[in-house]
Amino acid sequence: MSQSKPLILVTNDDGITSKGIATLVGLMAQLGEVIVVAPDSPQSGMGHAITVGDTLRLEETTIFKDIRAWECSGTPADCVKMARHFVLKDLRQPDLVVSGINHGSNTSISVLYSGTMSAAIEAAIEGAPAIGFSLCDFSSNADFSHVHEPILKIARKVLETGLPDGVALNVNFPPKRNENIKGIKVCRQANAKWIEDFDQRFDPNGRRYFWMAGNFVNFDKGEDNDEWAIANNYVSIVPCQFDLTAHHAIRTLNDNWGDTLI
Amino acid sequence: MSQSKPLILVTNDDGITSKGIATLVGLMAQLGEVIVVAPDSPQSGMGHAITVGDTLRLEETTIFKDIRAWECSGTPADCVKMARHFVLKDLRQPDLVVSGINHGSNTSISVLYSGTMSAAIEAAIEGAPAIGFSLCDFSSNADFSHVHEPILKIARKVLETGLPDGVALNVNFPPKRNENIKGIKVCRQANAKWIEDFDQRFDPNGRRYFWMAGNFVNFDKGEDNDEWAIANNYVSIVPCQFDLTAHHAIRTLNDNWGDTLI
Repeated sequence: MSQSKPLILVTNDDGITSKGIATLVGLMAQLGEVIVVAPDSPQSGMGHAITVGDTLRLEETTIFKDIRAWECSGTPADCVKMARHFVLKDLRQPDLVVSGINHGSNTSISVLYSGTMSAAIEAAIEGAPAIGFSLCDFSSNADFSHVHEPILKIARKVLETGLPDGVALNVNFPPKRNENIKGIKVCRQANAKWIEDFDQRFDPNGRRYFWMAGNFVNFDKGEDNDEWAIANNYVSIVPCQFDLTAHHAIRTLNDNWGDTLI
Repeated sequence: MSQSKPLILVTNDDGITSKGIATLVGLMAQLGEVIVVAPDSPQSGMGHAITVGDTLRLEETTIFKDIRAWECSGTPADCVKMARHFVLKDLRQPDLVVSGINHGSNTSISVLYSGTMSAAIEAAIEGAPAIGFSLCDFSSNADFSHVHEPILKIARKVLETGLPDGVALNVNFPPKRNENIKGIKVCRQANAKWIEDFDQRFDPNGRRYFWMAGNFVNFDKGEDNDEWAIANNYVSIVPCQFDLTAHHAIRTLNDNWGDTLI
């Protein structure tokens, strides 16, 4: 592979045939040499799952013209691992890893359940600059035309300046609206959650099953978070880390738990 | 259900028939009224996956004598959601949620891939005090005898004093060794990662498949992290949060990206 252009690995969680990844591959081809390793089927909601108790398949595909691409039976995190430690193992490693464009929001708490972001975070663990892109529109035929320019702007900036160690970007775009996007905001993850409702049904044999449904409830009144940005037609960028340590709680526990710790 | 004793929800990721959850159920029954909602099959490595594109099953089971228990076809995070929003929906909510005892380590970066901890973090999102317990021994018939006392100590303390908002505990135990456990340490997540190796094989039809294998590599020289604690025969407690925002990086990005953000 050529050394002159940056090498960009593209993956996603909606599967390699989705419109979102096709859009992202086309955009990244403007910035560098692209390779794709993406799931062979939809993997939404997979969080940071990896395949430890089962086998994995990996097949090269010609789905993207003039771009080398592989479809993988695993999760988005598996795809990043296979790209780095099998496909690219003895070659150069990517200068940038991008995941998406997800068909649906990954703002706020949804980052935890997001296969899109697990791929970006997996890449960050490996030391690669990484970005997950999501459009807040779940339609499989969503209009991505308004996000081309901000995606190129953000990806160029990361290629130029890198990212702080241990940080991946969670980028969410507002759905296509009548007014133009107002700008890009660096945000924190909003304090919100899903309240589930389980829709109980019975199969043809009379056995009970459920669909998980739910409502997203935003408790956050601030204007510095990703939910506010999207609601107000800004692109949100949340820098995300994979050190889950609640550092502020270490002292609290040591103070309160002194007698328990021996 | 009685109001006098604390209500404790038990789940895990190794599945409802594992030795680890049987041990944990027995211990929690000493502290309160126990209900169990756990996966009907092993869910290791599921991270924070949830079931969004498929149906869920939930069946009551008599596997634990005198304790109400349900097996669920979903992930550990699904189990917590179903317990709270279906099984306990119109009743009282748990005073404590415990997950495990996992057969295998969930120290350091493994917390991200851990189904055990995703259940605890899901409970923390819902506002419940929550603990994931893991034994650093992958054997299905591992010796849990040395962890009974510290589990009771930690669970009692959390029942008494609660936990800081938005924090779940990731508790790891050293494997049974000749010397006694030295104590309990509140730690940060060690800086370490897995370096994967993909074992390539061919099925009876000649099609290629892979097993993911890998080596755990610890880059951390500190003595305040979970890997150090386990290596030195301490129980480690890492307080974990679900706000993934890298707050320190927000200013860096705003400073460096000023011209990109409009």
